Amino acid sequence: MNIVVQKYGGSSIGSTEKIKKVADKIIRTKKAGKDVVVIVSAMGKNTDELVNLAKSISGKPDPREMDVLLTTGEQVSISLLSMALIEKGYKAISFTGSQLNIQTTSSHQKARIMDIDVTKVTEALKEGKIVVVAGFQGVTEDNDFTTLGRGGSDTSAVALAAKLEGTCEIYTDVDGIYAMDPRRLKNAKKIPRISYDEMMEMASNGAGVMHYRAVELAHKYDIPLYVASTFSDEPGTIIDNGGGKTMEEAVVTGMASSLEDIQITVLNLPSPTKSLYRLFGQLGEKGINVDMISQMLTEDNLMHVSFTAPKDDLWLVEKVLREWQQQDPTIQWEINEDIAKISAVGLGMRSHAGVAAKVFELMSDNNIEVKMVTTSEIRITWVVVREKEQQVIDLIGHHFGLEMSL
Amino acid sequence: MNIVVQKYGGSSIGSTEKIKKVADKIIRTKKAGKDVVVIVSAMGKNTDELVNLAKSISGKPDPREMDVLLTTGEQVSISLLSMALIEKGYKAISFTGSQLNIQTTSSHQKARIMDIDVTKVTEALKEGKIVVVAGFQGVTEDNDFTTLGRGGSDTSAVALAAKLEGTCEIYTDVDGIYAMDPRRLKNAKKIPRISYDEMMEMASNGAGVMHYRAVELAHKYDIPLYVASTFSDEPGTIIDNGGGKTMEEAVVTGMASSLEDIQITVLNLPSPTKSLYRLFGQLGEKGINVDMISQMLTEDNLMHVSFTAPKDDLWLVEKVLREWQQQDPTIQWEINEDIAKISAVGLGMRSHAGVAAKVFELMSDNNIEVKMVTTSEIRITWVVVREKEQQVIDLIGHHFGLEMSL
Repeated sequence: MNIVVQKYGGSSIGSTEKIKKVADKIIRTKKAGKDVVVIVSAMGKNTDELVNLAKSISGKPDPREMDVLLTTGEQVSISLLSMALIEKGYKAISFTGSQLNIQTTSSHQKARIMDIDVTKVTEALKEGKIVVVAGFQGVTEDNDFTTLGRGGSDTSAVALAAKLEGTCEIYTDVDGIYAMDPRRLKNAKKIPRISYDEMMEMASNGAGVMHYRAVELAHKYDIPLYVASTFSDEPGTIIDNGGGKTMEEAVVTGMASSLEDIQITVLNLPSPTKSLYRLFGQLGEKGINVDMISQMLTEDNLMHVSFTAPKDDLWLVEKVLREWQQQDPTIQWEINEDIAKISAVGLGMRSHAGVAAKVFELMSDNNIEVKMVTTSEIRITWVVVREKEQQVIDLIGHHFGLEMSL
Repeated sequence: MNIVVQKYGGSSIGSTEKIKKVADKIIRTKKAGKDVVVIVSAMGKNTDELVNLAKSISGKPDPREMDVLLTTGEQVSISLLSMALIEKGYKAISFTGSQLNIQTTSSHQKARIMDIDVTKVTEALKEGKIVVVAGFQGVTEDNDFTTLGRGGSDTSAVALAAKLEGTCEIYTDVDGIYAMDPRRLKNAKKIPRISYDEMMEMASNGAGVMHYRAVELAHKYDIPLYVASTFSDEPGTIIDNGGGKTMEEAVVTGMASSLEDIQITVLNLPSPTKSLYRLFGQLGEKGINVDMISQMLTEDNLMHVSFTAPKDDLWLVEKVLREWQQQDPTIQWEINEDIAKISAVGLGMRSHAGVAAKVFELMSDNNIEVKMVTTSEIRITWVVVREKEQQVIDLIGHHFGLEMSL
């Protein structure tokens, strides 16, 4: 079989009019001789509406029942899309996560896919049907409904493509992956092809189109992803194992920026190693995703340690620090919410040294203080004061050629 | 176990505020020491909204996919009600028709329940949980979703009560079964207790509160039904095998009226037996529910035959007659849509002769033409011109004591 898995997000099917247009797009692929499996999310604002219903009943809705509620969203979508395909004269059949026995862990609202039984899918494909599957959802061993959390529908699509040994196309409201979000960098250029590694670095540092876990899964099973616009035929972006000429040449492939982090600095720690062990041990226990860490020795041989964490976890971080302070009242800290975390990503950094140096030079020439910095083999991330964010994006975007040639 | 199955209809849970009140009512039963299983329908106008979505995609939506769509309605209800119960400090768990493997026939939108696996329900009850089940829905052998059609949620409740050997309470927006719809007979009295047989006769002749099939199933398994108001503590109506003193005394227990029928008269049939065989055979093949039949010989030894059928089936009836007319152009017919079908029902008719005679006398005294009449052991049904309907209801209601004593 020649199977393509197409995923359409909530904004692509936000109305019955849009659903009909998506049906036309699917039919074009079917007519081109492909076996088509479609993954859909909940329609437009449907999930928000369901969450509001739950919130009006309980401040902290029961997680199991929340998933019973949320999974109705995609179920509505798959039925309407299947009806639209059938109305247009094609054979189609829908399946929920439960009907395909998409086995997940039992962590409600953030379940992870363990396995998918594709028997019903392959049978339906053999009968010439277009198969429409509810994304974002699965079931536990006990057949309790689960949802996959952020990036869930993309992950469903990749997992199905992996099991079906097909290709995977992600259709969304942007027409591909840009070197930088075009709302932030005017004239940002579209990337025709990007490696899994680069895409994962960009996704985990603030680039919004693809979620990290879907790209990670595609990487694991070596499923090429094609990201493009639902309602245009503009060529999109291929995400795969790389190897293209363009890739080798670009030092910096893309950039991402995040305003979702805070910087915490714990001051004047007397016995650094023990203190760091204690601090990051306890933050880890609370499930706080500590990202960048830097430390600085003072003249008195005490240590300041800074780290970044997601803004949403601030209350948890403060809880850990207050508990520590109760035992050791000398502990003090500063919170800085006024930061931007900016990353430049590129496979080319592996072979081209000096990107970090160039970034520091650009910052220095423009009197921008680099508050923290970390690097990986293919990424450099640095923190600046928030009001400088746009200036940094423009400087980096321009210097490393992330804009369209005019 | 001491199990009570409570069913709450769509109007009882039409908002999250109402859902919280229903939760309070369920908790009172739980506190009284019962094991509670709750069946809910879709919230208020939710089903209509889903149907409108489908209609905006297809004039004749695919039946399988329609049920995928419709079953989301009750799934939303069960999750929200369970959340409300948990929020109030009680253990609760929801199940869809699929999760309980409520096996049905595969007739989408009008499936019939074959069996229910109550293992999960009894396990949850043993753990002290309130069990909340989606009414109106089930699955086929292949785990395709089905819906049960009109009266479906009541039927789900009765079926579960039968399997669990519990009692069944139907909560709705009226506070019991009245001798006649109080919107039609001012001061109609509430019936404290009514037999399955009477209730079935009333339900199949236009009384709206309970659907025929749910009462029939309760009768089959001898499950007593209690019908009462969701939001008041007024005593409701018990539907069971009868035996109460009140029942034996009343000649007429209740009355029903329907404006949903048409009268068709086929004129001047030459060979009556053969013609009737042909006519009703073909109407039966088309699934038309022919109700009352009367025939009249003319002076020329030809026959007129009249029958009533649901208004919705008029086009099918006319199709049958037109096909007949193509073969035999002498066939002619008249349609009368301007009729009311009124029924009086009472176990007492078994022992008290003369109810039919009394009805004819009342009609005659008031110059009301009885167009057709049929009787069963406990029912008399007659057709009058629609403009006389209210007058007939008042006459019968008054004469047979269906009004409250003041």
